[in-house]
Amino acid sequence: MSRTLFHACHAATLDPARPGVWGAIEDACVLVESGRIAWIGPLADLPADRAEGAVRVDLQGCWITPALVDCHTHLVFAGDRSGEFEQRLSGVSYEAIARAGGGIRATVAATRAASLETLAETAEARIRLLMRSGVGTVEIKSGYGLDLQTERAMLLAAGEAARRAGVRLRRTFLGLHALPPEYESRRADYVRLMAHGVLPALHAEGLVDAVDAFCETIGFTPDETELMLGAATALGLPVRLHAEQLSDQGGAALAARHRALSADHLEYLSEDGARAMAEAGTVAVLLPGAFYALRETRLPPVDLLRALNIPMALATDLNPGSSPLVSAPLAINMGCTLFGLTPAEALAGMTRHGAKAMGVEHECGLLREGLAADIAVWDLPQPAAIACWIGLPGPERLFLAGEAVQP
Amino acid sequence: MSRTLFHACHAATLDPARPGVWGAIEDACVLVESGRIAWIGPLADLPADRAEGAVRVDLQGCWITPALVDCHTHLVFAGDRSGEFEQRLSGVSYEAIARAGGGIRATVAATRAASLETLAETAEARIRLLMRSGVGTVEIKSGYGLDLQTERAMLLAAGEAARRAGVRLRRTFLGLHALPPEYESRRADYVRLMAHGVLPALHAEGLVDAVDAFCETIGFTPDETELMLGAATALGLPVRLHAEQLSDQGGAALAARHRALSADHLEYLSEDGARAMAEAGTVAVLLPGAFYALRETRLPPVDLLRALNIPMALATDLNPGSSPLVSAPLAINMGCTLFGLTPAEALAGMTRHGAKAMGVEHECGLLREGLAADIAVWDLPQPAAIACWIGLPGPERLFLAGEAVQP
Repeated sequence: MSRTLFHACHAATLDPARPGVWGAIEDACVLVESGRIAWIGPLADLPADRAEGAVRVDLQGCWITPALVDCHTHLVFAGDRSGEFEQRLSGVSYEAIARAGGGIRATVAATRAASLETLAETAEARIRLLMRSGVGTVEIKSGYGLDLQTERAMLLAAGEAARRAGVRLRRTFLGLHALPPEYESRRADYVRLMAHGVLPALHAEGLVDAVDAFCETIGFTPDETELMLGAATALGLPVRLHAEQLSDQGGAALAARHRALSADHLEYLSEDGARAMAEAGTVAVLLPGAFYALRETRLPPVDLLRALNIPMALATDLNPGSSPLVSAPLAINMGCTLFGLTPAEALAGMTRHGAKAMGVEHECGLLREGLAADIAVWDLPQPAAIACWIGLPGPERLFLAGEAVQP
Repeated sequence: MSRTLFHACHAATLDPARPGVWGAIEDACVLVESGRIAWIGPLADLPADRAEGAVRVDLQGCWITPALVDCHTHLVFAGDRSGEFEQRLSGVSYEAIARAGGGIRATVAATRAASLETLAETAEARIRLLMRSGVGTVEIKSGYGLDLQTERAMLLAAGEAARRAGVRLRRTFLGLHALPPEYESRRADYVRLMAHGVLPALHAEGLVDAVDAFCETIGFTPDETELMLGAATALGLPVRLHAEQLSDQGGAALAARHRALSADHLEYLSEDGARAMAEAGTVAVLLPGAFYALRETRLPPVDLLRALNIPMALATDLNPGSSPLVSAPLAINMGCTLFGLTPAEALAGMTRHGAKAMGVEHECGLLREGLAADIAVWDLPQPAAIACWIGLPGPERLFLAGEAVQP
């Protein structure tokens, strides 16, 4: 059994069972056995002989946190949309870009045309960017295939990329991301195909951990969404939902009726929607990268979420269009700067609450005995500095299951 | 004589003498002799034998740009203000923080108490963060000492840090950054001391490349600023100015009267001020990091600057309070996303125009024969992608004077 003792550090455990917003332990040590935290506490309290024979890793006074959890990404895709970014800033309208085959349709076309290996390679590179920024657990959605073959390729590529990079992964089926051009006049057929054909097939292959949909005026209606969430629930799969990003569609309440793991975006969340989420134990996933990139002005109702004790997660929403954000510390900074979260709320959002939004809170997301030894090591004077700096590259070191990783 | 041929790349030269917004060369090569660009153009046009005997560096299809230029930073300082960031987000007012000795006063106190070696070490670490993000030339201001001894220590530390890190440096004296507590009732004495005592002394030691002041309601009046700029001009030193950040003080016109290299911030720039800058050839330095961190809403008048052909530079404004931004590509992205610059304008802002704002445009800031071979290598499909991604760590490789550097 491999045993490692991390010492000479301070720990922001994010464990709510410990006092203070950070669950901090000064002069801490962490004993890792077989990839899990076997003991954590002040070095002075470590029982004599408890760490005997363990390899000792001196962290030289750094702060440690749980490795970060990015619970909402769309990082499997092909193509490059920086040309559209340039066009928009040069005065070309979204509409003209869309008419010319740009926007999400460009990504769908490029993704359908790409090989599985290309999808896996490019996804691995993006996962490694997130890892450099401190991420050890990532969620990846499908939704740029919009047919069985390409949705399947995306989920396979996600699995392969995460395996190569060495991160924990959960895969989400997002067939209801956009209506593909070939179904433009047959919406209902598309929704039924995804819910009753593609989802069960991909689930049968073990490729689906959760099901999501884009419930929005420019996405799918609440009724269409309901059909998909019902199909997921019937298969025993947990659901999540893109809800209330650009308008209030009642998506949060719909998600809550399905006991959703999370409702995501939520700029237009109503009080009723929030109450339903609180009732159902649904996590609010806030995505400041999209808010920033789209120059939105409507803020998610953070005070309401706080008042109702709804856990707030933060994620990058990494995607090629509305949120090309590849840094977890920057998502944390944006959560504070743009949405007004405290640094501790933001860090909890990208650790403990992100893990809950993914349904992996019993594996990772805080530093506690029994959980994975996924540890980020920050050469900073206090944990709030992770949130305060803008554009921080990431932690000095990252350990997943107790092993050093080199992104 | 060392000779290197960089090949198998595309070049965004940012050279206005070449066609297109990027001054792009596809299938380019760059011949470097003794740290300077001896030849640049399409590989097919390289004269036979021109590169004979040169070491060949295969850039594997990457795009190259000039190494980035960060023309406005305050990166020499001691102390840590992330605790204030946390307090503010937890509901403590700026006023309460200031009353408790926080804000810039906290940085002044910590900087005065720090050793020269501590200042140099921490500054070097920050320069290395900028280098990881692609920076090869940096400006550093004094202004957290506010007395002869500490202003001097800051400029010495800046020199030592840049030397150790291996970047090109210009140092700016910013004695009129804030009024130190010991001069609270003697403003005029402080301004005279800085302009007629401290500036000449530091200049005599060769520590000052330019002179700046914070002309603002919460900084120094136009008359006080005038006194300092006049003293600088009398010494033959170029000037720059923090102008029109929070209000229109007529600072841009004042700077222009002194043929300033740059006027910086400029959210409240008037048309008259802009015309004066255009007349004087003064660069507009835009600082989106401070705009972002302070949640400002008033945008600098980019259309006006464009209409008057005023060169727009971008910089991080790296400082511990109002802009703790440590990434040059993120400053470029913010220039586009927040201020509406095109990707090519933003990249020119952090290369060619940044160099002009520092007075080093004859040394660096574009890829052209005779200039320094300061080259950033980006593994991206097109140069606009540098601006499009949010939180990009930096280039794959960085060469300064033709030599690979390891930040």
